[in-house]
Amino acid sequence: MRLLTFADDASGADRVGLRVHDRVVPVAELAPDLPSSVMELLAGDHLPALAEAVAGPGVAAAVDRAGITAAELTYRPPIPRPGKTLCIGRNYAAHAAEGGADTPTFPEVFMRGATSFVAHGGEIVRPSCSDKLDFEGEFAFVVGTRGRDVSEDRALEHVAGYTLFNDATLRDYQRKASQWTVGKNFDSTGAFGPELVTADELSPGLAGLTLRSYLNGEEMQVGNVDDLVFSVRRLIAILSEAMTLEPGDVVVTGTPSGVGFARTPPVFMKPGDVIEVEVEGLGRLSNNVRDEMPRVD
Amino acid sequence: MRLLTFADDASGADRVGLRVHDRVVPVAELAPDLPSSVMELLAGDHLPALAEAVAGPGVAAAVDRAGITAAELTYRPPIPRPGKTLCIGRNYAAHAAEGGADTPTFPEVFMRGATSFVAHGGEIVRPSCSDKLDFEGEFAFVVGTRGRDVSEDRALEHVAGYTLFNDATLRDYQRKASQWTVGKNFDSTGAFGPELVTADELSPGLAGLTLRSYLNGEEMQVGNVDDLVFSVRRLIAILSEAMTLEPGDVVVTGTPSGVGFARTPPVFMKPGDVIEVEVEGLGRLSNNVRDEMPRVD
Repeated sequence: MRLLTFADDASGADRVGLRVHDRVVPVAELAPDLPSSVMELLAGDHLPALAEAVAGPGVAAAVDRAGITAAELTYRPPIPRPGKTLCIGRNYAAHAAEGGADTPTFPEVFMRGATSFVAHGGEIVRPSCSDKLDFEGEFAFVVGTRGRDVSEDRALEHVAGYTLFNDATLRDYQRKASQWTVGKNFDSTGAFGPELVTADELSPGLAGLTLRSYLNGEEMQVGNVDDLVFSVRRLIAILSEAMTLEPGDVVVTGTPSGVGFARTPPVFMKPGDVIEVEVEGLGRLSNNVRDEMPRVD
Repeated sequence: MRLLTFADDASGADRVGLRVHDRVVPVAELAPDLPSSVMELLAGDHLPALAEAVAGPGVAAAVDRAGITAAELTYRPPIPRPGKTLCIGRNYAAHAAEGGADTPTFPEVFMRGATSFVAHGGEIVRPSCSDKLDFEGEFAFVVGTRGRDVSEDRALEHVAGYTLFNDATLRDYQRKASQWTVGKNFDSTGAFGPELVTADELSPGLAGLTLRSYLNGEEMQVGNVDDLVFSVRRLIAILSEAMTLEPGDVVVTGTPSGVGFARTPPVFMKPGDVIEVEVEGLGRLSNNVRDEMPRVD
């Protein structure tokens, strides 16, 4: 299933839809008894019931009756307010090396707040205080089942699905201290989406898939998921040794080599740029870049 | 006002109470029209209405009718699920120095997820994978009013109130990578409470107040808020240059010198210990330490 969160045209409230080819059916039309957010669908273990509704005979009629063209939607992040969003740094050896760092022996982990998110189709904002806005194409996984001290063997049972992320970073702010949090948490920099693709539609842990990012149509990054220093399974085992992973928690898995700051000359994003992240089966996360508007307080 | 969140005896659901001396009145009894969580009280700007109810003639009767003895309550964190919890490292020069670090020129910022919290009176858990559990007594402030690019002059207008925090840390896990997140996010290590004291009851930014921590009754840390490298005002200005601060967001301001790992010989917390954090006017945050239970999955 391909679940996406979008803004209701009239109220602006978040709605959940199921994408069928180029049409999106609100889950409320398909299965009116189910809750109306991805977070609640996961927390209440409702995906099997939704899958049953999707397999039933009413889907075609629901698409005809209530389908919305995907291209017309205002997307919201797949999980607008995760309990926690754990991001992994230096998780491809070639990216660690291009930044002058060793391959880590333990995951580099930082967090993003939801105030840093921007949905598919939304604008990544270059703040007025910095022009060192860099892209980092990544895939993310979303926790479906609560777990602590999860073994690698059983780790993938805890994954509801996968999506894309652009961990856009203000490089100068990332390096103002040893901890990267501020440079990673500017408003409207963490592009997230377009949709949550359930794990059953993809290879286990995304094995063998290729991730690419494109700046204004030109390929900037390419990496194979098999080259992750810490695989999805391994991340779940390591993170859950410390903390309970809860339904709706998001883990952003790290970026391959080819980011802007490590290029000669460096490439930073500027207003008017289009930045895209792609993995086969997860679609393409696309965002324009704009400058921060002057604020009137 | 002194607002605390506690577990309903019957349902276990979170309730909000107002403490009057040693008695706690549920806000639902005092002002039935107001929402029933601190987060919603802040988001809806309901504190003035609550203060009005508190100043009214009905309080004594409500305490008589529905008051609960504070000592009997099962506390919950003052904000059980903040939008984001930003923690500041090395924010007292003497603590930076005891760890062999320079005084920072920009705040060291990491985040905690709510799965790491433990309430006043709850047990801090030493995990089975590490015995390097250290204490860090701190005070925290809670954002009341949304803000971005807030000036230092107006920063304190955005603070709803203050509380205490014990940023308990697994030192070995903190240092397994350059980013401290994992060592700072073990389940039930971030002690938080006992209550949110509104800013009007305290000096601006807690100026002049002394923070102390005690391990089994022995004073381990003492620091004056005036010695913060980055004051409350300055933190709000710096953080909000990057990110929107939202009602209910928590900023944990850093620990003074005297932590366990920097002592000769080092002191780590062990089962049966009692660790307390105190600031005059904010009360005393008290937690016992226990070992993690063997898990049966």
